[in-house]
Amino acid sequence: MTIDLRLDPRETPLLIDFYHLTMAASFHEHGLNDTACFAMWVRRLPQSRGFLVAAGVERFLETLEEFRFDEEALDYFDSLKLFKPDFLHFLSGLRFTGEVRAMREGTIFFAEEPVLEVRGPLIEAQFLETLALNQVGMGTLIASKAARCYAAARGRRLVDFGLRRSQGADAGLIAARSSYVAGFDGSASVLAGKRYNIPLFGTMAHSFIMVHDAERDAYANFARTFPNLSTLLVDTYDTLRGVENAVAVARELEPQGIHIQAVRLDSGDLLDLSRKTRRILDDRGLHKVSIFASGNLDEHKIDALLRAGAPIDGFGVGSAMVTSNDLPALDAVYKLVEYRGEPRLKVSTDKATLPGSKQVFRGMDASDRFLGDMIGLSEESVHSVAQSFTPSSARVEPLLATQMRDGRRVLPRPSLTDARQTFLESWAKLEERFKGLQRPDVYPVRYSGALKAALIEQRVRVQKRQA
Amino acid sequence: MTIDLRLDPRETPLLIDFYHLTMAASFHEHGLNDTACFAMWVRRLPQSRGFLVAAGVERFLETLEEFRFDEEALDYFDSLKLFKPDFLHFLSGLRFTGEVRAMREGTIFFAEEPVLEVRGPLIEAQFLETLALNQVGMGTLIASKAARCYAAARGRRLVDFGLRRSQGADAGLIAARSSYVAGFDGSASVLAGKRYNIPLFGTMAHSFIMVHDAERDAYANFARTFPNLSTLLVDTYDTLRGVENAVAVARELEPQGIHIQAVRLDSGDLLDLSRKTRRILDDRGLHKVSIFASGNLDEHKIDALLRAGAPIDGFGVGSAMVTSNDLPALDAVYKLVEYRGEPRLKVSTDKATLPGSKQVFRGMDASDRFLGDMIGLSEESVHSVAQSFTPSSARVEPLLATQMRDGRRVLPRPSLTDARQTFLESWAKLEERFKGLQRPDVYPVRYSGALKAALIEQRVRVQKRQA
Repeated sequence: MTIDLRLDPRETPLLIDFYHLTMAASFHEHGLNDTACFAMWVRRLPQSRGFLVAAGVERFLETLEEFRFDEEALDYFDSLKLFKPDFLHFLSGLRFTGEVRAMREGTIFFAEEPVLEVRGPLIEAQFLETLALNQVGMGTLIASKAARCYAAARGRRLVDFGLRRSQGADAGLIAARSSYVAGFDGSASVLAGKRYNIPLFGTMAHSFIMVHDAERDAYANFARTFPNLSTLLVDTYDTLRGVENAVAVARELEPQGIHIQAVRLDSGDLLDLSRKTRRILDDRGLHKVSIFASGNLDEHKIDALLRAGAPIDGFGVGSAMVTSNDLPALDAVYKLVEYRGEPRLKVSTDKATLPGSKQVFRGMDASDRFLGDMIGLSEESVHSVAQSFTPSSARVEPLLATQMRDGRRVLPRPSLTDARQTFLESWAKLEERFKGLQRPDVYPVRYSGALKAALIEQRVRVQKRQA
Repeated sequence: MTIDLRLDPRETPLLIDFYHLTMAASFHEHGLNDTACFAMWVRRLPQSRGFLVAAGVERFLETLEEFRFDEEALDYFDSLKLFKPDFLHFLSGLRFTGEVRAMREGTIFFAEEPVLEVRGPLIEAQFLETLALNQVGMGTLIASKAARCYAAARGRRLVDFGLRRSQGADAGLIAARSSYVAGFDGSASVLAGKRYNIPLFGTMAHSFIMVHDAERDAYANFARTFPNLSTLLVDTYDTLRGVENAVAVARELEPQGIHIQAVRLDSGDLLDLSRKTRRILDDRGLHKVSIFASGNLDEHKIDALLRAGAPIDGFGVGSAMVTSNDLPALDAVYKLVEYRGEPRLKVSTDKATLPGSKQVFRGMDASDRFLGDMIGLSEESVHSVAQSFTPSSARVEPLLATQMRDGRRVLPRPSLTDARQTFLESWAKLEERFKGLQRPDVYPVRYSGALKAALIEQRVRVQKRQA
């Protein structure tokens, strides 16, 4: 029995909750396995958050194609002494044969809007709850946080520095991938670079300085090894003296064709230090040497620094982004919305759901700016919904597309660059007032008339289910 | 190129930052690869947090034994067009040949205390920074949070319900494992159950109720499939009516030898609902049916419910525990403390380090209660340090033990049950005042005289490194 951090391919389908197994056993015993539709959405966002960015969908879909319980998994289930041979046999043949409709990665969306829907035999579809929430939830959580940093950075370079503070190995990969989708320029994570072809960035650690007897020797050694890639860390001892040392080394090596690219500030008052650093660099004619900053940064600190005019050219963002520290979990759910062709809903206090399979319709004006969204039923047409938008010239786009049918992909897999492009294009179309870091305006999301009617009808039906 | 959530065994060594590669290239070029010692510790904790629980050490050690860059990794490095063939050749032969001293999993420890130290050739040892912080950081983060829930639950059953809200697949496994170490009774995660032999618990989802035409049918179906394992979820529609339905089903099935184990409340005012539920159950003679609660719980809510006398017998804890929501990342570092036998330190603003390889000495009184800790140098003996404790009868125990030497394990691998035992024993020895959820007393951690002397001596030496 390994305890390690690697996930065997055969382990992926075991990312389920125990109740999925027990419910499946009961469904199986009682012949309940008709077509069900489950939808995943985020119930609500804190006031500080204005939007979400879809990510993690590709990771989820990739897993579905190979969903099966192998011999070892079945032996484990059997060892629990709870399941009948007939059910275990059923599980051994279980594959995902259903349909998935989902938003494209990089799509900007909002609370209550389904980001994906799974339709298929009840037992298959219910098994995907945890995987969908875990993967699409985390992907979306981080892309949404990273987009806030992107807003704050106003075009400055942004690098994911967070692998060390990520919540595990998978989280580090997700953070690199999601932040790249949401406008980051690259990552320090080597595995993310290799796997996803994300540009790698890095500077040096304090230990690099500390193994040398003198700070200047460390700078010179590094610059000689990488004549065009040196970002020198200046805060191991006294920061401004570190900058002076970097300047001395830069000037000494310049005649040899060795150029320092940047200095990195990693502690202290970044506004004050960046100004003083810029002055020192400029005074010595090192106008091309840029300033890179890091050290417990988040979107608010980046925003404050740039508002105050800090001459910082790039930011490394770690913990805050990779853990989405102000909102470390999304209030996301994966709920049954239809069974045997009939809409279903739950009415628990504060946790009520919207019934039926849905579509999200986005209205755009003549210059492609987002006007607002309408959540409707999936059978509603773009044409019928378009009438509800003002102006009447609004163009309406459905956000959910069929990604899998009969358990197979039907759309070409988008590349990570495609997803990034989707985000950047959406971002340009979303008004600034919805992007604020503190209390952004609430983006208008309405229910269609047909959805409202279904909601009322189902609320009445619920009464009799508890009779 | 896969994007998926599984980690290939060959990918684990790539959980490094880009700067580890560039620094290694420069160290290699300049012949800097003498023995270095790196230590990992948590710099500080917020006032609300009184202690830490070590976890993740076994996952880290397991990875080290197989550390190597394979052909595919080397090809990737080569493709970056930054590294010389000589360096890539060096990397192809790189293995971990050093020593690791670490605390046992389940050990309670405090800020500033090294939880592990790695000693070996500089390049090997620096490559492990990100892996150590990622794995031991996350393991410890969650075990520390889970222990707070354990304190709050006062012996009630605690189950990890968090896989769906974990930050990725690896985080879910870590959360199940770490919370089990820190006193949880089990997890809902099937993979954690299979891998780590953690007891599995589960109830049913709202969807189980919703596919049935009547709530009572759902209860009866589930109870028939699992005559001794039914926890019925009562809040899909109206909670107290759900309880009435559960009671009706329980009484109807009792003559057939089918027993309902518990009802689960998952929303609403849990104090009020649990009291009313208990009353309904008791009124109908169902004294043995217990009440299980869930729904955005954390240590504070559990504490408040039990202080108010809520008759709840067990709790499912998800997001708050698995993401450590009030502290989603530890302020942990992995820093060079010694090179070529000489202590090293960093003096950056707010980020200064303690020089030298260390040991953590814990004083215990006659009844084994923790008296306080002393951080000393690793060469100090228990005997010499013991004199600094009051009373003089104090027993002193070193917390760091050599786990690996020459790249091989030298201590038997503890089982997860051993780690849990270590935690439970430590927990009993830590006074209540250090365990508070709000502003616990600060546990006394001092520096030894030898460490203080080293600190002063090194501060003086730092001056000349920036000359």
